[in-house]
Amino acid sequence: MNKEIKDDVLKQINNIGWGAEEVLPEKELKQKLEKALIENKPLRIKFGVDPTTPDLHLGHSVILRKLRQLQNLGHKVILLIGDFTARVGDPSGRSATRPILTKKEIDNNAKTYTEQAFKILKKENTEIVFNGDWFSKMSFEDILRLMSKFTVARILERDDFFKRYKSGIPIYIHEFLYPGMQAYDSVVLKSDIEIGGTDQKFNMLAGRELQISYGQKPQVVITMPILKGIDGNQRMSKSIGNYIGLTESPQETFGKVMSIPDNLVTEYFKLALGKSENEIKDIEKKMKTDPAATKRALAGEIVDTYHPGKAKNAERDFNIKFKPSIRDNLSKEEKIKLLKPIKYDISNEVDKDKKIILWKLVKAFSFAKSNSDAKRLISQGAATINSKVHLDPYEEIQVGDGDFIKVGKKYYGVIEFKPKKGKK
Amino acid sequence: MNKEIKDDVLKQINNIGWGAEEVLPEKELKQKLEKALIENKPLRIKFGVDPTTPDLHLGHSVILRKLRQLQNLGHKVILLIGDFTARVGDPSGRSATRPILTKKEIDNNAKTYTEQAFKILKKENTEIVFNGDWFSKMSFEDILRLMSKFTVARILERDDFFKRYKSGIPIYIHEFLYPGMQAYDSVVLKSDIEIGGTDQKFNMLAGRELQISYGQKPQVVITMPILKGIDGNQRMSKSIGNYIGLTESPQETFGKVMSIPDNLVTEYFKLALGKSENEIKDIEKKMKTDPAATKRALAGEIVDTYHPGKAKNAERDFNIKFKPSIRDNLSKEEKIKLLKPIKYDISNEVDKDKKIILWKLVKAFSFAKSNSDAKRLISQGAATINSKVHLDPYEEIQVGDGDFIKVGKKYYGVIEFKPKKGKK
Repeated sequence: MNKEIKDDVLKQINNIGWGAEEVLPEKELKQKLEKALIENKPLRIKFGVDPTTPDLHLGHSVILRKLRQLQNLGHKVILLIGDFTARVGDPSGRSATRPILTKKEIDNNAKTYTEQAFKILKKENTEIVFNGDWFSKMSFEDILRLMSKFTVARILERDDFFKRYKSGIPIYIHEFLYPGMQAYDSVVLKSDIEIGGTDQKFNMLAGRELQISYGQKPQVVITMPILKGIDGNQRMSKSIGNYIGLTESPQETFGKVMSIPDNLVTEYFKLALGKSENEIKDIEKKMKTDPAATKRALAGEIVDTYHPGKAKNAERDFNIKFKPSIRDNLSKEEKIKLLKPIKYDISNEVDKDKKIILWKLVKAFSFAKSNSDAKRLISQGAATINSKVHLDPYEEIQVGDGDFIKVGKKYYGVIEFKPKKGKK
Repeated sequence: MNKEIKDDVLKQINNIGWGAEEVLPEKELKQKLEKALIENKPLRIKFGVDPTTPDLHLGHSVILRKLRQLQNLGHKVILLIGDFTARVGDPSGRSATRPILTKKEIDNNAKTYTEQAFKILKKENTEIVFNGDWFSKMSFEDILRLMSKFTVARILERDDFFKRYKSGIPIYIHEFLYPGMQAYDSVVLKSDIEIGGTDQKFNMLAGRELQISYGQKPQVVITMPILKGIDGNQRMSKSIGNYIGLTESPQETFGKVMSIPDNLVTEYFKLALGKSENEIKDIEKKMKTDPAATKRALAGEIVDTYHPGKAKNAERDFNIKFKPSIRDNLSKEEKIKLLKPIKYDISNEVDKDKKIILWKLVKAFSFAKSNSDAKRLISQGAATINSKVHLDPYEEIQVGDGDFIKVGKKYYGVIEFKPKKGKK
């Protein structure tokens, strides 16, 4: 083998391994890369997608980034839509997470999914396949033959199965068939590499075993770490609510990234943006000297990925909301335009002098959970009217149409004053 | 409910329970029998048959007898031929006991099976079905739906599975599907009762569960004891060799029954002939006074079941072989006709005086395993020539064409003497 290929293989291995949790086994990855280079034939990278969740978030982008990196190295991505199980649902009817979807819903979800995925993946280097194409044609005989390749003990080794078995939580037999099905996808697709989250390791290794027993070279398994959500604790997940959706607005995205704890910034650069080893070294340095600016750079880059060219505006809007020096110098018109305040007609709440007790005003806008909460917020200096702080909850405020009220960082209101004609 | 029906139900329950190991649950059997009588609608009795073993033996007859009894009570037998798994075989290729059979072989086996079974069952009250008719039409989706009715823990409860799991002997996933499949047969057939050996209890109970989850009334499960083989130790089995085949000759059948230990005689009357409780009481008495005659009666009845009218001849042939007083008084022609001796041309083994050492003669007929065995048998008085005992192994015997030699109870020979012309 010539030196050029040898070097290229080494470079690819380093790239592919960077950010991954595990590459199983690296030796086989090396062999596959060598072969691909010598024969000038791209590797087939399998990635399985569940079409029940069309809304992608940054957590999904971790694997998509890795796939894109492999595309950049010349390889081909096979996006496998698991439509078969989505159509069957959970036949036991016990899991709400596996609803039965119609063909149309699945097609729509797949379309939405790929539209979002193509913000990261190269379209021309991606093949989209549906496993219903083969599973719906299998006979019972085929299935028995397939399942004869796996033992009960082997499948029970899967972490979640074993825990459920030990603690007496039912595992239904059809669930026992799923690892074998996912493995069979690899046989049909003749995949060279399968990528998934660390939680998919077991199923992907089953794919290796099955490929061997079908006389194929086994796929290399690459597991990617699970991205933590913006709370910094749990995995990013829609159901937990700690996610950044790929289709959220530039403003929302920028704001959410700015809300993550500092110790996640480097990880997000690495996993959600796929930064290289050298880039990460730089980022680590910057985090020590100016963490706020580094986080802003992260937010900007993430916004630009999913909304190209929108980072600057998003940052400006963020500043308006969260930097008092900027926010308080805006004109009333700018405030209304940029801060999108709640409008509320106060005319029935004031006395004849158009006066109202401050804490009642705050409560009228529903900016506080209770009367005492309203008083507390005011005493702490959270309430401003026309950018002026008022500290006494019992102060009588004279209000006029168009006055601007703000409580804390999140609540903006505009007072309207439109006494109904003919009343009283 | 009128008294007549009540009495009839009680009578049927006693009949059905007699000889059975378990009736699960008896209360439901009662309800089913009542309903059947009131609506004048026979119950559907399922019995599953493996078409890989077409040669039935007396062990199989235990269940067939019980089925016949149910037919006599007016019910209908559904003989289910498990052609589907026989056609698939053991897809793991690890079990020699589940060879893959062709459609033709299965049809032949089923034909052979039913021909033998109809020596006990009433043809007009028997329906023959093949489970390939439904299993071959099932989609993967149907199978997932079916398998979602069972949990891993439930199937692992099956004795043999649990033992294998605990001792690390592989259970393949397709094997895990078999109980569910057998259970589904009951759903398709809407069986009221399923009958099987005690080893089938688990699968038959799974049938009950599945029927319930498909909204059907669950079948009553009747387990029948396993018949012991003629050795009196292990279950009767073709592979062990301790069986009495239903197609064996009257002579073989009679002889084999006569060879069983005395303590099996009553059990054979009960299980293989389906004798009633009262009849068994009589038989127990007779066994105490004349066990030999009782065993002869058993042998005769069994022969007459599978070869009607042939019991008398079979007993006569048995006597000829085993009763010396009868055997030794036969003419030479009768002996050759009845005892079917081996013929052997001794002309090259004798000296010029047509003499041969006795032990060499025994060995020449292969009536002894070794030279010393031949000498021992002779010394013990096992060898006769023309009905005369010869005790000296080294005696020089002068032989002639047509001389009759007998060693022990089993070996008969006729000496031929045809020196080749022109030789020497």
